[in-house]
Amino acid sequence: MIRTKYSGAAMREVAVIGVGQTKIAEHWDKSLKELAGEAVLMAVRDADIHSFDAIFIGNMLSATANRQQQLGAYIADWIGARGIEAIHIESACSSGSSAFRSAVMAVASNKLDTAVALGVEKMTDSPSSEITAGLATAAEADWEVDQGVSFVGLNALIMQRYLFEYHWQREDFANFSINAHQNALNNPYARLRMSITREQFQNSSNICDPITLLDASSIGDGAAAAVVVPLEKARNLQHKQTVRVAASSAASDRIAIHSRKDPLWLKAAEISAKNAYNQAGIHQQEIDLFEYHDAFTIMAALSLEACGFAERGQAPRLALEEAISLNGSIPVATQGGLKARGHPVGATGMYQIVEVVQQLRGLAGKNQIEGAKWGMSQNIGGSGSNIITHIFTNLGYE
Amino acid sequence: MIRTKYSGAAMREVAVIGVGQTKIAEHWDKSLKELAGEAVLMAVRDADIHSFDAIFIGNMLSATANRQQQLGAYIADWIGARGIEAIHIESACSSGSSAFRSAVMAVASNKLDTAVALGVEKMTDSPSSEITAGLATAAEADWEVDQGVSFVGLNALIMQRYLFEYHWQREDFANFSINAHQNALNNPYARLRMSITREQFQNSSNICDPITLLDASSIGDGAAAAVVVPLEKARNLQHKQTVRVAASSAASDRIAIHSRKDPLWLKAAEISAKNAYNQAGIHQQEIDLFEYHDAFTIMAALSLEACGFAERGQAPRLALEEAISLNGSIPVATQGGLKARGHPVGATGMYQIVEVVQQLRGLAGKNQIEGAKWGMSQNIGGSGSNIITHIFTNLGYE
Repeated sequence: MIRTKYSGAAMREVAVIGVGQTKIAEHWDKSLKELAGEAVLMAVRDADIHSFDAIFIGNMLSATANRQQQLGAYIADWIGARGIEAIHIESACSSGSSAFRSAVMAVASNKLDTAVALGVEKMTDSPSSEITAGLATAAEADWEVDQGVSFVGLNALIMQRYLFEYHWQREDFANFSINAHQNALNNPYARLRMSITREQFQNSSNICDPITLLDASSIGDGAAAAVVVPLEKARNLQHKQTVRVAASSAASDRIAIHSRKDPLWLKAAEISAKNAYNQAGIHQQEIDLFEYHDAFTIMAALSLEACGFAERGQAPRLALEEAISLNGSIPVATQGGLKARGHPVGATGMYQIVEVVQQLRGLAGKNQIEGAKWGMSQNIGGSGSNIITHIFTNLGYE
Repeated sequence: MIRTKYSGAAMREVAVIGVGQTKIAEHWDKSLKELAGEAVLMAVRDADIHSFDAIFIGNMLSATANRQQQLGAYIADWIGARGIEAIHIESACSSGSSAFRSAVMAVASNKLDTAVALGVEKMTDSPSSEITAGLATAAEADWEVDQGVSFVGLNALIMQRYLFEYHWQREDFANFSINAHQNALNNPYARLRMSITREQFQNSSNICDPITLLDASSIGDGAAAAVVVPLEKARNLQHKQTVRVAASSAASDRIAIHSRKDPLWLKAAEISAKNAYNQAGIHQQEIDLFEYHDAFTIMAALSLEACGFAERGQAPRLALEEAISLNGSIPVATQGGLKARGHPVGATGMYQIVEVVQQLRGLAGKNQIEGAKWGMSQNIGGSGSNIITHIFTNLGYE
């Protein structure tokens, strides 16, 4: 049992005993609830359980893209989990991790015993203008969106400033994307299973200067899920594939980039990562793999810096030196990341968590990080206004 | 400390030490975030605290009506609570109580110490057709909504069947509305502070047969908030206005009415109320007041039955006999209920909780239930697909 800084009360530790995911694709033949059901069923079978007490669902766009809210009851009904607690959690692109954190807190609170965390998003049935408008609701409506700036636009402004301040060329970001695509080759659930060359990166078509197509992640339809239980229960079940949730931390930042003192620093990432290292009782150097939020290459760089893996302004060096590759000092996007695995926005956080869990179980296939014992995931909502960090560890190394 | 049925681990008990609310109105001069800020500031001052660790925000319509998601960061930023955990929870019209339950679980989990639960909704700036379409996203998009049935329509179908099965006249529902309006007269935060007569009820204009204008609650703009802390902390602070959260329970039902075995029975209300009585260790007869979800008079009736206050099909008798009035056996809607206080959908659950807390503190003004020691709130999402029940008690009577 861990004692927090807040009080003398004991906290119930929690673990993940099952995970599931669908392939990320343009699933024109599957609805939102069908994708959700597929991921949940896979997680429940993996966990070898027959029922659960609650489902916490991360989703960003269903109100606008699918005209469906009340996703809790909607999905609980579809999967036949009658009567259970079922709610929907939203924090833009970090909705998936927020749902997972809700499941963790619910189990830790002792108010329930077995929870499923699910992230699901169905984006490709809607006109892309509607999706772009939907994604923009993660920025500040009053100022950012009213000025007509899209989410790519906000990231382009940050990247432009980053190149100027720290004297990098946009080509220096190439390896973030090359590495992600390389790793996606071995991930059957990834949307973009193709490698890319440095030349392709350099000649990639412009989206919003300096961001090109190959700096940006791909949207998609998908769902990913995990089964969360008290650690003591996982131990009693003698579940061989148990992964302990060593840390869970969420922080926010000012929603509009223009309000932040330093638009090149992800303050919420720094806060949540530091809290997470403290909770896990480890130093950032002990992290064996990092599923970061590379929605754009600039976010990959800022995330590495805010979490302490690189000095301020120096993250591109990690990419240039290939420290981020599978056998580097800090492997990232080990199954393709948002860039190449795909970014079904409200589901992404759960994909990251599923991937970390599989690495710690030794089930990451050809992309396995040998001997991995500490894995971290970090999910970014908006342009950094809501950031959730989780650290996991396998029981063998406790 | 309470031990649950699930395991031997101890649960941290939680309490409410501050509440706040705005008047429900057509607030054309105030934005969503301004309403939110007003309620949070009032709750924080009431609690006499200077900071908090997290905010959990219940809201249903901001994605469609306000084109703003990521309400967590958006509101944390506005109120100046920089860096804190801040997320948005949605379960249609029960979003407010879902947010409160998230705050309760977060504090009980020991992962944080002081949480604010907020419900906020800004409905009157949008065309009413858009609000009607937004509200319909709480029903099943695939079947109910595609058939063109609105939320009033669904409730009218249920009420029609109820009248047929149990041989009541619609006039027998009059006291649900008359009582609510009477109680709202003394509530400065209520939207419809006017009494209505039996004659007015009978002659009220038809909305969707058999539902008339005076069966239906009024929408509105509003925000309500509460400060949640560990009970031990409230005791240490020697906070005189502490109210203990004696029970918190959520349950779901099939989302579409046509899928339910019995469309006249709120199964999720029954499950969550029974769980709540168990958690609180009391019988339903000990409840001194009940803030129920009278979105329509038929929902008031079904809620009373599912929670055990009336036999199946007999709730109108409670109304006819005035058992639901302030000095009746089970006072309901003591500050006007959804009917007359108003129903800003995602905020409603928090209004109910604020009202119960004020009753237990003895601060309910002219509508005070003398000697109240157990108060219950029940918040319904969709047409009964997601129902959350809370029971509170004041410390003096523990």
